Amino acid sequence: MIEQFKGKTALITGGMGFIGSNLAIKLAELGAKVTILDAMIPDYGGNVYNVTESDRIRINFCDIRDQQAVNWLVRDQDFVFHLAGQVCHLMSLSNPFPDIEMNITGTAIVMEALRKHNPKAILVNAGTRGQYGPAVSFPVNEEAPTNPKGIYEISNLTAEKIIKVYNDVHGIRSVNLRLSNLYGPRSQMMHSRFGVFNWFIRLAMDDETIQLFGDGSILRDFVYVDDCIDAILRVATTPECYGEIFNVGSDKPITFRELCDTIVRVAKSGRWEFAEFSAERKAQEPGDFYSDISKIERFTGWRPTTELEDGIKKTIDYYSTCRDHYWTKPEKTATAKTAEKLTTATKR
Amino acid sequence: MIEQFKGKTALITGGMGFIGSNLAIKLAELGAKVTILDAMIPDYGGNVYNVTESDRIRINFCDIRDQQAVNWLVRDQDFVFHLAGQVCHLMSLSNPFPDIEMNITGTAIVMEALRKHNPKAILVNAGTRGQYGPAVSFPVNEEAPTNPKGIYEISNLTAEKIIKVYNDVHGIRSVNLRLSNLYGPRSQMMHSRFGVFNWFIRLAMDDETIQLFGDGSILRDFVYVDDCIDAILRVATTPECYGEIFNVGSDKPITFRELCDTIVRVAKSGRWEFAEFSAERKAQEPGDFYSDISKIERFTGWRPTTELEDGIKKTIDYYSTCRDHYWTKPEKTATAKTAEKLTTATKR
Repeated sequence: MIEQFKGKTALITGGMGFIGSNLAIKLAELGAKVTILDAMIPDYGGNVYNVTESDRIRINFCDIRDQQAVNWLVRDQDFVFHLAGQVCHLMSLSNPFPDIEMNITGTAIVMEALRKHNPKAILVNAGTRGQYGPAVSFPVNEEAPTNPKGIYEISNLTAEKIIKVYNDVHGIRSVNLRLSNLYGPRSQMMHSRFGVFNWFIRLAMDDETIQLFGDGSILRDFVYVDDCIDAILRVATTPECYGEIFNVGSDKPITFRELCDTIVRVAKSGRWEFAEFSAERKAQEPGDFYSDISKIERFTGWRPTTELEDGIKKTIDYYSTCRDHYWTKPEKTATAKTAEKLTTATKR
Repeated sequence: MIEQFKGKTALITGGMGFIGSNLAIKLAELGAKVTILDAMIPDYGGNVYNVTESDRIRINFCDIRDQQAVNWLVRDQDFVFHLAGQVCHLMSLSNPFPDIEMNITGTAIVMEALRKHNPKAILVNAGTRGQYGPAVSFPVNEEAPTNPKGIYEISNLTAEKIIKVYNDVHGIRSVNLRLSNLYGPRSQMMHSRFGVFNWFIRLAMDDETIQLFGDGSILRDFVYVDDCIDAILRVATTPECYGEIFNVGSDKPITFRELCDTIVRVAKSGRWEFAEFSAERKAQEPGDFYSDISKIERFTGWRPTTELEDGIKKTIDYYSTCRDHYWTKPEKTATAKTAEKLTTATKR
């Protein structure tokens, strides 16, 4: 892999975020010159602590919708890793426009920039397994129907189709990935809206109680972020992958109950309990999901190699050294809790 | 049908265009109060000659992307017929943004307006058979894969998926149609970019030569606009249709060669000849297409009833009485042709 990226240039949109920052660090290790584009929108995934600028990594703050800046930044890049976007699948229920603007228009801006200013670049796009919508059979392969139940998922599916058209019609080589639920270091830990795995880790580390919605039997295929980075780098450097769509998941699905048990066991703190689905979450919950990952293995030899316990341990180790950069347990929370307890006591 | 629409209110987005104006006139005949929204973008389908304001038809000029105006206009409407959009499937090859803004964002603006200001309205959306992309088997039914080859078609597919989410998640009842190639009165006749059938009629009426790309053997299912209006009105008033997707096409596909023969015969003028595909058209040409229309027939009893010759005759009769409102044969065209001939002669 070192030979493939040494001296190469790469633009990472959304590079201050979870996947983008891990990718930037890995690419720099492999000898690439990385440019990060990130809008640092509050409450999104970007965190300045995730990546440090260096002679290998340059950070350019701007929005993916900034057409002139994107036109400029794509020039002379060997690779473009397109990770910027609105990634909360609940927001679109009350406001569909950020998804459309960032995920659809933003993607079109990147593709037009490549068509006009750097048609030889290779683009890898991070889509989501949410694009499938409710699974009709398992494991879900790339030919499965795509009937997503939310604007967020629709916007990702549209981005994928736009990228495919630029591949087929304009010759901009690209690979579209559909990522399952990821976890690991450098994910934002302020809220649970981008995925619950890392949120559960935070709760366990803080010795809090994890609320497990439903009966905990829903199956998911979780992927440790380093495995995902490996998949991204492999498809980027395998010409047979250009123009293709690949699932990036795990063929060892586990239940949320198993997940919580493992997190609490590895963290040696926290606990979990069952909780009722909120109506909002229930409406968006697509049920069991696990990917058929035989296609990407066939094309690139990729398989996830991180065992669940190891991944959780690495994640906890990371945040243990730098928790304050990702979340705090401010005094007022403790105060609020005390107040709540007093109120409850009074009510009794 | 009169009972279903008498005294009802209806908003037609894109109501000055081909389908919208025919629909507005029909709804007014049936006793509905119609509001037309149209941006009258030059070179698009709107034509002020198509519809005359009356006590039954009110025209409101504004863009589908004008959020405040759309919020206002959807109030108190029993039905919304959503026909506004960028409809040229070639434009998106050089500029994807009008499709995204008008067809995706514009649709989201209409759906958000309904969610917030009139959630009881029933919406009918006019999508396109182009959403399927190249057909994998015939006739094409609503379960066929959707892998379109252009941004225009992707934007329509995305609009459909957005509308479906508002039906399923927010309870805004709607019907999505996928229209085959339409023809008939009130289509713009300035250029061939929205479809060639009406363009061929113009050429025949002007005693010009129709250029038939390829070998003329490609199959299509053409629909006369009045049949399409009938389908739109039926699905709007059939509650079983809400939340469903329907093809609107014909089960009697014909070749382009048969089409040209029939047009020239009915017009009693013009002629046709074979021509080479341009590279641009070839890249976008999805080959044979004809719809399976059994689903809409099962739900509503709809079938196209206009024979090809009758439809062509009615179309020619319409434009014969008002040709100048749709196209002219300006002097300068003749001059330009003479100049071209002279240049060619000089080059020899």
